[in-house]
Amino acid sequence: MPPHPAGSPSGSLAAGLAGGTQGPGRLRPLLGTVLTALADGATARGGPLPAGGPEAVARRVREACTPVLPDTGTGAEEALRTLVRALAEGAADPADPRCTAHLQCPPLAAAVAADLAAGVLNPSLDSWDQAPSATALEAETTAVLAALVYPHQGPGSQGPVHHAPDALITTGGTESNQLALLLAREHAAHPPLQVVCGANAHHSIHRAAWLLGLPEPVTVDTPAGIVDPGELARTLEHLPRRSTLVVATAGTTDTGAIDPLPQIGRIAEAYGAALHIDAAYGGPLLFSDREAPKLDGLTAAASVTLDLHKLGWQPVAAGLLAVPDTAALRPLDHRADYLNAADDTEAGMPDVLGRSLRTSRRPDVLKIAVTLRALGRDGIGRLVDTVCDQAHTFADLIEQEPGLTLHRRPAISTVLFRPADATDHQVAAIRRTLLDQGRAVLGRARADGRLWLKATLLNPATRPEDLQQLLDLITSAPRTEGTTDR
Amino acid sequence: MPPHPAGSPSGSLAAGLAGGTQGPGRLRPLLGTVLTALADGATARGGPLPAGGPEAVARRVREACTPVLPDTGTGAEEALRTLVRALAEGAADPADPRCTAHLQCPPLAAAVAADLAAGVLNPSLDSWDQAPSATALEAETTAVLAALVYPHQGPGSQGPVHHAPDALITTGGTESNQLALLLAREHAAHPPLQVVCGANAHHSIHRAAWLLGLPEPVTVDTPAGIVDPGELARTLEHLPRRSTLVVATAGTTDTGAIDPLPQIGRIAEAYGAALHIDAAYGGPLLFSDREAPKLDGLTAAASVTLDLHKLGWQPVAAGLLAVPDTAALRPLDHRADYLNAADDTEAGMPDVLGRSLRTSRRPDVLKIAVTLRALGRDGIGRLVDTVCDQAHTFADLIEQEPGLTLHRRPAISTVLFRPADATDHQVAAIRRTLLDQGRAVLGRARADGRLWLKATLLNPATRPEDLQQLLDLITSAPRTEGTTDR
Repeated sequence: MPPHPAGSPSGSLAAGLAGGTQGPGRLRPLLGTVLTALADGATARGGPLPAGGPEAVARRVREACTPVLPDTGTGAEEALRTLVRALAEGAADPADPRCTAHLQCPPLAAAVAADLAAGVLNPSLDSWDQAPSATALEAETTAVLAALVYPHQGPGSQGPVHHAPDALITTGGTESNQLALLLAREHAAHPPLQVVCGANAHHSIHRAAWLLGLPEPVTVDTPAGIVDPGELARTLEHLPRRSTLVVATAGTTDTGAIDPLPQIGRIAEAYGAALHIDAAYGGPLLFSDREAPKLDGLTAAASVTLDLHKLGWQPVAAGLLAVPDTAALRPLDHRADYLNAADDTEAGMPDVLGRSLRTSRRPDVLKIAVTLRALGRDGIGRLVDTVCDQAHTFADLIEQEPGLTLHRRPAISTVLFRPADATDHQVAAIRRTLLDQGRAVLGRARADGRLWLKATLLNPATRPEDLQQLLDLITSAPRTEGTTDR
Repeated sequence: MPPHPAGSPSGSLAAGLAGGTQGPGRLRPLLGTVLTALADGATARGGPLPAGGPEAVARRVREACTPVLPDTGTGAEEALRTLVRALAEGAADPADPRCTAHLQCPPLAAAVAADLAAGVLNPSLDSWDQAPSATALEAETTAVLAALVYPHQGPGSQGPVHHAPDALITTGGTESNQLALLLAREHAAHPPLQVVCGANAHHSIHRAAWLLGLPEPVTVDTPAGIVDPGELARTLEHLPRRSTLVVATAGTTDTGAIDPLPQIGRIAEAYGAALHIDAAYGGPLLFSDREAPKLDGLTAAASVTLDLHKLGWQPVAAGLLAVPDTAALRPLDHRADYLNAADDTEAGMPDVLGRSLRTSRRPDVLKIAVTLRALGRDGIGRLVDTVCDQAHTFADLIEQEPGLTLHRRPAISTVLFRPADATDHQVAAIRRTLLDQGRAVLGRARADGRLWLKATLLNPATRPEDLQQLLDLITSAPRTEGTTDR
């Protein structure tokens, strides 16, 4: 019955399961192969990303991975060596200080190592009997994270229901925002729910409204990069009377700016609107005593998005949606007899199907829990402080450079800047040239009517000299494609 | 600037990034800790799942993981040792032959090892400059998997558009089904889209319709466990004239049954309805020359769901949604200037934002690609054949056991059975007792008006004697709680 236990490469692999008492012994040599391939690939790349641009990268990957599905397998060792090396050689590695475009963090080794165990055991968080310990670990961990967001809502009971802050683990801010809008849709007394957000809100707010069949969000202009409370009030004043959800942002994607949360909370309340705060980026400032006050006003929100794969140093996915009371999650309650039959639930088996819209669900909680315990609140807070400090250092360096213009002092760890005399086309071309040459990964953002280069500092190991080298790449970059723009 | 490079445990961890050329060296000892903790946990568990039931498991996990967020960290080694061991000791490990309730497969070591590299490099598939090689690897791999589903639709061009089968990688069948309904909603000429499915369809169809703001699906009774074509035709005949999506299932959750796909395809076409086939479970039968004919009729579908974390031996998540033509995915096109600005796309940077509703997105493609290459089509096909053979062996053993009743010969690898003279309450109690004792994880399903025990055979290493031992647990189980039922 055990298929081809030895012999052909694919046969020997067939018996190679990761789990059980024998799995770790099978994994050990394969993990060695992966680590070697990662190191070889990083050395071959020799920089933050591969040189040559999209076509060259695609060609090299195609050469490495063809045939994708051979008739006869090449065996685990060969496949891992070839494909992991190709992935590493062609990666934009956020652990390189010159890879600093996006909210894509370099993950901690501890988090990545923990995530291995999630794959080995493959618990699926859609029923207790697929994930006994993972269910419990998720409950403990989300309760603590929710209490970090909503510290004043202590646990309590009303009748048979236990009231306490709670959090769902998601694939990221986008799913968290989608769930937030869904919960608001279901709680709406006067449907259809109208979402109101700043022009600075994440694109996922608009996409979620479309997905959920809601009206297009009403957008408040944000010329200063943050929602103006007076402008928000005027917008709410003129809306038809129906259920409204105001969405504020704590850490915009373009500049890292934080909307004035306390004022927005008061205005939303005054107009009877619910409030969701997308703190995907800024939320983990809560780990830092120094930075946490920037999030004052957070607890007024009916729901808060945060991502630990941004300021939190987790590999994707590690999103969260926090709510002040478990009862707010009730619209997600769902029954599927094979997963949470009523008599099983009555007999004491935890019902976890209502903790996600997914069914099969990987325990992303494990890497999060390992990180929280390994670093502690102080340790994570210090990492947060470090990248915020880096952003100020970077802004200082830009201000000291006559050929560069700084957009604004950083709110979190995002810095916008540009060559003082460049056109928008030249700015875009500089970014693409550095990408094509494999020299730097910088982002782009439009603010105050101009295009800027964007650096999002998320690498705690980056040194001041790395930041200076990044700037030197810009100041020494040749100008091209500058004729057709302002 | 580098924070606390040495000294306190959390300080030493702060510098411990998984990426770059130094990451593999940092990871090696941590992975050793994880493997040891996994082996220790599995040994301590000593069976398919922990004994004691939900409360005892929760208590042990709570003891291990408290405090979840200490002020000062315990360091990576301690956190990994403690939490990975707790997770393993409290896991329902699908690599144990007695853990056979759900479509939760025991992952291959090669797939799990590959997934480690995804975490280390942390490419995020929402823009090319976060994932150069991962973008290319995903394109190559999904094209091959889509061609497996739609072999007759070769690549071709009409004007500037390249037409070929395509597939999206999802978090699982639930997200795939959700996307399928969303695509159908957006393609609907006469909205609102009406979904029509069998009573045997996965609960995610109903949940997706709710999420998307669609009318409640019209459900066709399936007393035989599969959709009856005549019944479907009568249902479609009586629907109001508007856009309709018929959903068929290839591998139901309860019994593994496959709807009569060719007839359903003809009826859908005759009534002008679109067809989606949820082959989350059955889809990978395509890897086996022997089993693939069970899926005849698949290519008539506008979209097909399949999960490689079921028959495919991947850790969650490894879902797919295949379509016969890339153009079908156009409703997902989406622009966010920081990720796919028009001038970057024109300059040749691949636009990947339309390949998911998520934004940050982990490269689940890597483990899939490593598995396809390592095993080849033959190797995966043999694994498929093996578990299907096991199911027949298991059915044989049940038929030979006078005290047990077999529901039906298996369609894929799911087998329903029950003690011949037990009440439904007794069946449910037997399952819970085995769970509480930590002796077996069996599923449950209702069919032909009765409750059955369910075994879903997905472990290629399971031997006939393991199957006999599983049956012995049932035949020797004491009967309890049987007084109030039929």
